[in-house]
Amino acid sequence: MTAATPLLRAYRGERPERLPVWFMRQAGRSLPEYRATREGTRMLDACLTPALAAEITLQPVRRHGVDAAILFSDIVVPLKLAGIDVEIEPGVGPVMGAPVRTAADVARLPELDPAALAPIREAVGRCVEELGTTPLIGFAGAPFTVASYLIEGRPSRDHLVTRALLHTEPGVWDELLAWVARQTERFLRAQVEAGASALQLFDSWAGTLPPADYRTGALPHSRTVLEAVADLGVPRVHFGTRTVQILTDLRDAGADVVGIDDRTPMAEAVSRLGPDVTVQGNIDPALLAAPWAVLERHIRQVITDARAARSHVLNLGHGVPPTTDPDVLTRVVELAHSETG
Amino acid sequence: MTAATPLLRAYRGERPERLPVWFMRQAGRSLPEYRATREGTRMLDACLTPALAAEITLQPVRRHGVDAAILFSDIVVPLKLAGIDVEIEPGVGPVMGAPVRTAADVARLPELDPAALAPIREAVGRCVEELGTTPLIGFAGAPFTVASYLIEGRPSRDHLVTRALLHTEPGVWDELLAWVARQTERFLRAQVEAGASALQLFDSWAGTLPPADYRTGALPHSRTVLEAVADLGVPRVHFGTRTVQILTDLRDAGADVVGIDDRTPMAEAVSRLGPDVTVQGNIDPALLAAPWAVLERHIRQVITDARAARSHVLNLGHGVPPTTDPDVLTRVVELAHSETG
Repeated sequence: MTAATPLLRAYRGERPERLPVWFMRQAGRSLPEYRATREGTRMLDACLTPALAAEITLQPVRRHGVDAAILFSDIVVPLKLAGIDVEIEPGVGPVMGAPVRTAADVARLPELDPAALAPIREAVGRCVEELGTTPLIGFAGAPFTVASYLIEGRPSRDHLVTRALLHTEPGVWDELLAWVARQTERFLRAQVEAGASALQLFDSWAGTLPPADYRTGALPHSRTVLEAVADLGVPRVHFGTRTVQILTDLRDAGADVVGIDDRTPMAEAVSRLGPDVTVQGNIDPALLAAPWAVLERHIRQVITDARAARSHVLNLGHGVPPTTDPDVLTRVVELAHSETG
Repeated sequence: MTAATPLLRAYRGERPERLPVWFMRQAGRSLPEYRATREGTRMLDACLTPALAAEITLQPVRRHGVDAAILFSDIVVPLKLAGIDVEIEPGVGPVMGAPVRTAADVARLPELDPAALAPIREAVGRCVEELGTTPLIGFAGAPFTVASYLIEGRPSRDHLVTRALLHTEPGVWDELLAWVARQTERFLRAQVEAGASALQLFDSWAGTLPPADYRTGALPHSRTVLEAVADLGVPRVHFGTRTVQILTDLRDAGADVVGIDDRTPMAEAVSRLGPDVTVQGNIDPALLAAPWAVLERHIRQVITDARAARSHVLNLGHGVPPTTDPDVLTRVVELAHSETG
């Protein structure tokens, strides 16, 4: 029954009877019920407590009627479960006990024991049970983005250490990203085996690399992950920010669906990708704070421009800003559902 | 004599006998002499103390033998001189006493009294005196980037408030950016009148806007500034980061030279701009930390690709990282000077 939902039909390249929609970071700080649930609980503890992670995952489905849930998690969760010393500091982001920059650092990285993924499987199972036919999307960071946190040791604006390492120690680089790719495959596999009907690989920082460096250093490892989970038979969405120059690379890495970021006009995305690709996106999150007439005009333009693609799942071009009025998101869902797919 | 220097010949579209080079943020934390000079002095105090600003401006010329100095300043200096409550907090960036977001906020903005620019004129005069024939480049932020600090009130990763305001209050937006453009013209005019031989408009955050929004909301105000200083007769360089989609807009705003950022391959930049444009850039700053052989190969590629442009001034594609070994910069200058322009 899930397979017949608008989301999965669109992900398979069909044009369903109504336009499916969900929002990146829909489970998050924009929702008062999320803030209440998270109160007093650290981010990674919330991700690794199945009842909490499931509750948070389901909140936006209950409130907005979106066409999919996406597992509430974080890109460093598989690192944590592998035994890496990592915490998410409020207002900062992921902070590593020690950065990973040398061959010796990489050699010391532990392999993720699939048994450690039990809390992820349980959270997914709980979600799927309550969701009924509504699909759950599995979640993971792409090797480059995850590795950039390992290399920098903490969030970075310019990723200078990461970008230098790619050129200085290409062997260390490839071993590190291959390690991340292996853990990522296990993380995604556990989610699909527990009931996720699709998966999205988030390469948030893909656009920080010059395109040639992306192709040399990041793309092959994303391809490893996407190909490694191909046997699971679920649609694979590939998303990054500031990817206008590498959209066809995102597609060719083995994606069934390309997520379009908010700096890429949808018309240009479809023109670059061609009419045989399914696109997801790309409402500008900044416009969620604009008057409805302005936002509506923008959304209708996105929908119109995406009609030149094979199929379309409406989404934002980046995550929901924490300051977003949740009622606006509900209204966006109503608008999407008034449109054909 | 300054007009015959390689920098100014290249800026005018000629191919001088040797390739000119300077570095964005060459006067800054990468230099031990800068750190010693700045010790105990706040950023804006350093900018507004002529002897200090001149000393810092000259340090990289003395050390590296670069082909130009650029006035040590900050994009919020004209705001400070106009009487805006702004400070630069170490490790944070510009912080406003109050954000500017409404028509009433904009109406209250004071006009910069040209007399208040005396410390800028004096700093430029001191620089020019010591520089001899070496040109000094005048410095200013572009209206959009400066306005984004006024609107957000402090540095922002996503500029969500700024991007929303453009759509929510286009009238307020245009009045604010027109105000910034007026102050910017005065700031640049003072520098050229005191002896600067070229000027560069920095639109650091231009790439945070979707291209259509850049064209509606930012470009017209950059054009206002560049056209307002055309009568001064000095070359005008226009630079922003992540500008691959708007390079021809940067040119058409009234620039004599387009600065290319580090995410845009030089070959693509020249292909987009055509062979009649002078380009500046775009060594990847991340590679300043790579082994020399890797960096040298990259620089030679940039130089080769830029030979398809009308003329070329070698520079980075973004500012010098504070962790850069200054000896590497000196070596880059030597490499540039071994090449013909």
